[in-house]
Amino acid sequence: MRPPTIRDVAERAGVSKSLVSLVLRGSDQVRPEKRDAVLRAAQELGYRPNAAARSLSERRTRTVGVLLNDLRNPWFVDLLDGLNSLLHANGLHMLLADARLNRRTGQDPADPLLDLRVDGLVVVGTLPDPAALGAVAGRIPVVLAGSREPAPPGVDVVAGDDEQGARLVAEHLIGLGHRRIAHIAGYGAVGELRRDSFEAAIRRHGLAERAVVEPSDMTEEGGYRTTVRLLSRHERPTAVFAVNDMAAIGVLSAAEELGLRVPRDLSVVGYDNTSIARLRHVWLTTVDNTSHEVGRRAARCLLERFEGLDGAGRVQLATPTLEIRGSTAPAP
Amino acid sequence: MRPPTIRDVAERAGVSKSLVSLVLRGSDQVRPEKRDAVLRAAQELGYRPNAAARSLSERRTRTVGVLLNDLRNPWFVDLLDGLNSLLHANGLHMLLADARLNRRTGQDPADPLLDLRVDGLVVVGTLPDPAALGAVAGRIPVVLAGSREPAPPGVDVVAGDDEQGARLVAEHLIGLGHRRIAHIAGYGAVGELRRDSFEAAIRRHGLAERAVVEPSDMTEEGGYRTTVRLLSRHERPTAVFAVNDMAAIGVLSAAEELGLRVPRDLSVVGYDNTSIARLRHVWLTTVDNTSHEVGRRAARCLLERFEGLDGAGRVQLATPTLEIRGSTAPAP
Repeated sequence: MRPPTIRDVAERAGVSKSLVSLVLRGSDQVRPEKRDAVLRAAQELGYRPNAAARSLSERRTRTVGVLLNDLRNPWFVDLLDGLNSLLHANGLHMLLADARLNRRTGQDPADPLLDLRVDGLVVVGTLPDPAALGAVAGRIPVVLAGSREPAPPGVDVVAGDDEQGARLVAEHLIGLGHRRIAHIAGYGAVGELRRDSFEAAIRRHGLAERAVVEPSDMTEEGGYRTTVRLLSRHERPTAVFAVNDMAAIGVLSAAEELGLRVPRDLSVVGYDNTSIARLRHVWLTTVDNTSHEVGRRAARCLLERFEGLDGAGRVQLATPTLEIRGSTAPAP
Repeated sequence: MRPPTIRDVAERAGVSKSLVSLVLRGSDQVRPEKRDAVLRAAQELGYRPNAAARSLSERRTRTVGVLLNDLRNPWFVDLLDGLNSLLHANGLHMLLADARLNRRTGQDPADPLLDLRVDGLVVVGTLPDPAALGAVAGRIPVVLAGSREPAPPGVDVVAGDDEQGARLVAEHLIGLGHRRIAHIAGYGAVGELRRDSFEAAIRRHGLAERAVVEPSDMTEEGGYRTTVRLLSRHERPTAVFAVNDMAAIGVLSAAEELGLRVPRDLSVVGYDNTSIARLRHVWLTTVDNTSHEVGRRAARCLLERFEGLDGAGRVQLATPTLEIRGSTAPAP
């Protein structure tokens, strides 16, 4: 059996050869249905582009290292899917390391990947010390995905637009008639952007006086404890916007425990559209930060750097959407 | 600063040097508190055992590949923690690959790890084609963790005891007075073992006539659909034992939608004690298959093979426990 050609992929996907090559170069000028059809066809046929193979043959391992910050919060799953779709179509493998696990020994969490001489590194989420990536970025292309921390020179950043996401949440809740809205905030650049944007939207609607913002550690437990405090106030909020889905799950638990029904007595919104938010039993209104798209764009940045693109790091923001589910309703 | 020695570790952990060396060899003759103290001290000090370093210096990369079957189901997180604790203490790195992602191209999912010449492979969970690991096992040590599929020759298997786990569930429900118990079954060796053991326990108590077993695909959606069918029967069950936590979450949703309250009207039990089962908002009674212990034992098997242990593959089963939470109660 001869190896599949670009012509075979085009035929199977029902598109032209030049469209296939556009897709494999990661162009965003192609309609999503076409793009998906091409990537699917390439994968089903096991197609490996010759050009990519050639340009990559000088590389060392055809492997991209992916450094995750913590496997326990499942927000990264769609991002990996998106990343993988484009890398695989270009004949590259993906290997993962968990920064939390590697951190324990005080070692640089990227070390095991670098020791194996990966060709590039994608850092998914917020690392405690992103500046440490500067040294790595001098050796191989590095892309930060899904995090808004300041990047070392030459490092591309691809993330969801947190300001827009938080604004969508504030406007959704205000549109439902909520006037006393609480925000359970997080830390790091992502936490700050979401908080600042929430506060700005609340101010624009003249509701700043009645809003409450409480810090949290972005975990379920943190969301729970903060909410118990919030809901014991004299003037309790009718809606809570949590910085991420995990904290929002904590809000749901606290509400249940205090005898409040969601969404009748309390509206709750999360952020990330994780698999947990999509569980029917949870069915949380949340911001979808188009992680699949973020992953695909991160792969494209890396591929461009492999092809020799030089210069300053770029920042690309993907447009989030609001997923309205069962945890929000008009104010009581 | 001189590198830390075994004496430093012993001092910090408040134990003897020989106990430290027992722990680092993975002995299970050490009490858990002592073992944890030693591993913590070794990690905090960044200790790398000389002996391990020597015996591993002939190895190629000091890296162990971990092949996961699907990152979307979070049951593997504790297992990785356990695996990592012992590997890291022995100066080995861990790299992960997701079989679901690599499978898409029709490529063998272990390939990227082998291409990078990992020293050993741990397969976590059920692969569609475990026999394919036979070829890998001829080149490097391979351990299956958390799966009960037939292993190729020379491959060690470490898993939870599914028969005992399912028996614990059946006896818990029967003890609560449930007489009409449904089981939402799964597939593969794990699915079969849990089902057979459930049926045997039910038979022993003379309840086989009133029990129902329905197959499922082990997903939330599958658990949901099966339960909607189950609960629309004339004689509906008062308790449901789902093959895993994901399916059990589907049961909770179906019950809620049909206006049944858990646990008052319906008791629900899952399996795996995932992070989702531990969420306060879910608070699911489930079987803890001691994944951390399974991970640690898998690491020990691998270390023994690195040290030259030869011979037939061994099967080790860890003893599960039942985590009784808020989703089970006496029969209505």
